[in-house]
Amino acid sequence: MSSKPSIPKGTRDFSTSDMLKREYIFETIKQVFRLYGYQPIETPAMENLTTLLGKYGEEGDKLLFRILNSGDYLSGVNDEELSTRDTVKLSSKICEKGLRYDLTVPFARYVVQHREEIVFPFKRYQIQPVWRADRPQKGRYREFFQCDVDVIGSDSLLNEYELIKIVDDIFNSLKIAVVIKINNRKVLSGIADYIGEKDRITDITVAIDKLDKIGIEAVNAELSGKGLSSEAIANLQPVLKLSGTTDDKLEKLSKVLAQSETGMKGISELRTLFAYIQNAHLKCEIELDLTLARGLNYYTGAIIEVKSKDVSIGSICGGGRYDNLTGVFGMDGVSGVGISFGADRIYDVLNQLDLFKEIRVSSTEVLVVNFGDQETGYALGIIDKLRTLGVRTEFFPDAVKLKKQMSYADSKKIPFIIIAGVDEITGNSINVKNMSTGAQVSLPLDQLESFVMNNLRPVPQPR
Amino acid sequence: MSSKPSIPKGTRDFSTSDMLKREYIFETIKQVFRLYGYQPIETPAMENLTTLLGKYGEEGDKLLFRILNSGDYLSGVNDEELSTRDTVKLSSKICEKGLRYDLTVPFARYVVQHREEIVFPFKRYQIQPVWRADRPQKGRYREFFQCDVDVIGSDSLLNEYELIKIVDDIFNSLKIAVVIKINNRKVLSGIADYIGEKDRITDITVAIDKLDKIGIEAVNAELSGKGLSSEAIANLQPVLKLSGTTDDKLEKLSKVLAQSETGMKGISELRTLFAYIQNAHLKCEIELDLTLARGLNYYTGAIIEVKSKDVSIGSICGGGRYDNLTGVFGMDGVSGVGISFGADRIYDVLNQLDLFKEIRVSSTEVLVVNFGDQETGYALGIIDKLRTLGVRTEFFPDAVKLKKQMSYADSKKIPFIIIAGVDEITGNSINVKNMSTGAQVSLPLDQLESFVMNNLRPVPQPR
Repeated sequence: MSSKPSIPKGTRDFSTSDMLKREYIFETIKQVFRLYGYQPIETPAMENLTTLLGKYGEEGDKLLFRILNSGDYLSGVNDEELSTRDTVKLSSKICEKGLRYDLTVPFARYVVQHREEIVFPFKRYQIQPVWRADRPQKGRYREFFQCDVDVIGSDSLLNEYELIKIVDDIFNSLKIAVVIKINNRKVLSGIADYIGEKDRITDITVAIDKLDKIGIEAVNAELSGKGLSSEAIANLQPVLKLSGTTDDKLEKLSKVLAQSETGMKGISELRTLFAYIQNAHLKCEIELDLTLARGLNYYTGAIIEVKSKDVSIGSICGGGRYDNLTGVFGMDGVSGVGISFGADRIYDVLNQLDLFKEIRVSSTEVLVVNFGDQETGYALGIIDKLRTLGVRTEFFPDAVKLKKQMSYADSKKIPFIIIAGVDEITGNSINVKNMSTGAQVSLPLDQLESFVMNNLRPVPQPR
Repeated sequence: MSSKPSIPKGTRDFSTSDMLKREYIFETIKQVFRLYGYQPIETPAMENLTTLLGKYGEEGDKLLFRILNSGDYLSGVNDEELSTRDTVKLSSKICEKGLRYDLTVPFARYVVQHREEIVFPFKRYQIQPVWRADRPQKGRYREFFQCDVDVIGSDSLLNEYELIKIVDDIFNSLKIAVVIKINNRKVLSGIADYIGEKDRITDITVAIDKLDKIGIEAVNAELSGKGLSSEAIANLQPVLKLSGTTDDKLEKLSKVLAQSETGMKGISELRTLFAYIQNAHLKCEIELDLTLARGLNYYTGAIIEVKSKDVSIGSICGGGRYDNLTGVFGMDGVSGVGISFGADRIYDVLNQLDLFKEIRVSSTEVLVVNFGDQETGYALGIIDKLRTLGVRTEFFPDAVKLKKQMSYADSKKIPFIIIAGVDEITGNSINVKNMSTGAQVSLPLDQLESFVMNNLRPVPQPR
C-alpha cells in the first residue's frame, strides 16, 4: 500500500499537543464537578438500537451509526425482503446495535437499568465521545466529546443554583469571560398563555430563540408565517423588549403573567434562583434572558446558556431542568437538571484568545543529553534523582550529535537540558541550559535538588 | 416500553464506584508515563476498513465491528450481487468503516499519516477502548480499554530499560507485587538455529510459550506433533531447563549459541539491558525467562511480560521490541518498543487483593445537612468556604428528614456531615459528625478551616 492512509471524514486524530490542551480543559471541568460532589459514570459506545431509535426524531434516526451484526447478518432476511432493497427496513434486520448519539439517552437507560443500585439524588457527570452521521463541515464532526453533568431525583432549585456556581467556577478557572443567561420554560409557557396561543408554545419558543441571531423583525415574520395572529404577535412585543434589572424584569413580567398559574410558578422559581445567585458573588456576568429558549421542548423549568464575551461562537455550555427523563424507558417521575459543556467550542475559544500559552501543560521539563555508553551511568543517576523529585525527565535514547538532541528539545518545547559529559563527571557537576534564554550554568551535582526547587518546582496540580 | 432496557452483550456500564477505581488505575499509569516524557495521543473510534482489514489475520477480520454506510448503503450493490447473499463480499460494499480492534494499527496509521509533524524519537501513550466481536465470556469483553506506551524511531536499548523502569514504578505505586519476565526474540531465533530447525521458529516459540501452563512433557509432545525431529527436541531440553542467576544463564547460553550470529546478538542485548537493570535498584522482581515468547511473531528483540505474584490471572502487562511497525502502510525502517497494560486484569488483581479499600478515592468528603429555607443561607456560606479550601462538599438539595440525609451520606461513604441548624446559627457554630466513629463535635464557625486542615487536609494528588 503506497498511498498515505487516512481516517474517515468528520473524525480527528488528536496529537500530543492537542491532547495536552484537551486534557487541561477536561481536568479543569472534572475537578470542579468533583468539588461539588458529582461523580463519573461511563456507558458503552454501542447501545442496542431499541434504546436509541425514536429518541431523536426521524432526522436523528438517520444520523445514527449502525453496526452490522456479526456472522451471517443476512440469516434473518428472506430473499423477498432482500430484493425490496428497502434500506431502512433491512438495516433494522441486519443491525442490532448503534453508536451512541448523545449522553442523555444512555444516561436515562442507565438510570432505569440500575435504579436499584443508584443512591438518589444521583449526581453524575459523563465525558465521552458521541457519533453522528452528520454532513461534516467546519466545526462539526462525526465524532466529538460531550461533557454532561446532571443531578436527578431532586426538585430543589438549589440544584440549578449549584450548576450555575459550577459554570462560574469552571469558566473562571479557564479564564474565559462569559455571560450566563438564564430563563425558565414555565415563563415561556405563561407568555404563550398570555398572548392566547397556548398550543403554539413550540413555534413561539423556536422563533424567539432566534432573536439574537435574526432580530425582532425576522422573528415576528416567522411567527406570522407560522400562523400566529397579528394580535398575538403585538402582545408579545413588550415581552421581547423587556429591559432593566433582573428585579425590574421579573416585576414587570409578574404583572403581565398574573393570570397564568404556570407563568407565575416560573417567575417564583426565577426569583428563588436569583436570590441564591445574588448572595453568591459570582465572578461571571449573569443575565435573565427571556428570549432564551434553546429551541427544545425538552426543558420544563430553568434554561441555562453560556456565551463567551470575547469570541463569537454561539453557546459554549447550556442545559436546564427536565421532567421525566426516564419515562421513555418505563420509569416515571424522575426529574432532573443538567448542563453540557461544549469541549470543542471551549477549545476554540481558548485558542482564539491565545490562552493555551499561559497554561503550563504537562509535558517534559528536562532533557538529559546522551553522550554515549561511558557517560550513561552518570546520566541515569541524575535522571533517577529528577524523577524522584517529580520532574518529568527524558534521557535522549541515542548518542547522536548534540545539535540533534538540542533540536529535539526545541521541537518538544522542553525548557531545560542537562549536559553531563566527561568534564562534568570529573567535576561531579552538571551543566544546565535554559532553552528559552540560552543561559547555561554549571552546578555541583549536590545542588541538583535546590536547582529543581528554585527553577522547576513542580506546580501543585489543582485538586 | 415496560421491559428493563439493557446493553449489548459483552459491554459494560461503569458505575461511579467502578469509575473511581478505574480512574485511580489510569491516573497512576499516566503519571508515570508523563514522568518519563511520554505524551498522549488519541485516534478516532472508527477507522477506514482499508486500514484495519488484513492486519489481524483472517480470524481478526471476522472480529471487526463494521459500521453500515449512511444513506442508501445498497446503491453500490447490484441485484445479482445482492442475491448471492455472500455476506463477506457484501459487507465490504455496504461498510467502509470499522471500530478499532487494537491501538497498534491505528498508531501505525497515525505515524505514517502525520510523519511530517512528528518529532522522533516519538514517545506516545494511548488509553482508549477497542472493540472485538469475540464471544463474550467471563473476563472477556467486546469493549475494553487498552493502555499502550511506545517509543518509535530509536534502536537504543535504553528505551527497553526505561519501559521496564516504568513497569517497576507503576506496579510499585499500585502496590501490586509482580515479577517482570524478560526474554529476547533473537535468542529464540538462535535456539531454533542451534537445534537445526530455523524455519520452525514459530512452532517452537508457540510451544515453549506454553511451558508454564502445560509443562515440559506436553511441550515436547506438541513439538513432536509439529514434526520436529527427536534430535532437535533433545537438543532443546538444556535450554528449556536452564537455571541459575541471570549471568549464569547468559553465560551457559552464549556457549550453546556461539555459532548463531542472531543468537549472540540477542545475548549481547540482554547483557546490556540487565546491566542497566542491575544498577537501577528496581523494586519488582526481574527474571530472565528464556521460555517467554508471547506467542507472537511480531517481536524482533526484547520481550517483556509481567505477572502478579499473588493472583493467578495470566499476564497483566507485556510487550517488546518490533521492527517495521509502519511497513504495512508504506513507511519502512521505523522500529520501536512498547508495552501494554491490561487495565481489566489490573482491576481484578487490585480487587482480589482488596487494595482498593486502601485507596483514597476521590469522592465527596463532607455533606452539609439541609434544614430548609431559613438555614440555607448559613449553610451556603459554610459550603463556599469548604470548597474554597478544596474540600469536596455536597449540600443535600432537599430539606427532608435528617435520617434520610444521613442515610444518603452513609450510602455514598461520605466521611463527615455538618449540621448547621437554628442552634448552630444562633451560636455561630457548626456541628460535625464523623460518620465512621459516630463522634460529634461542636465548633465555632471560625474554626472550620483548622478543622479541615486537621481532619480533611486534602491529600496532595500525585503529579
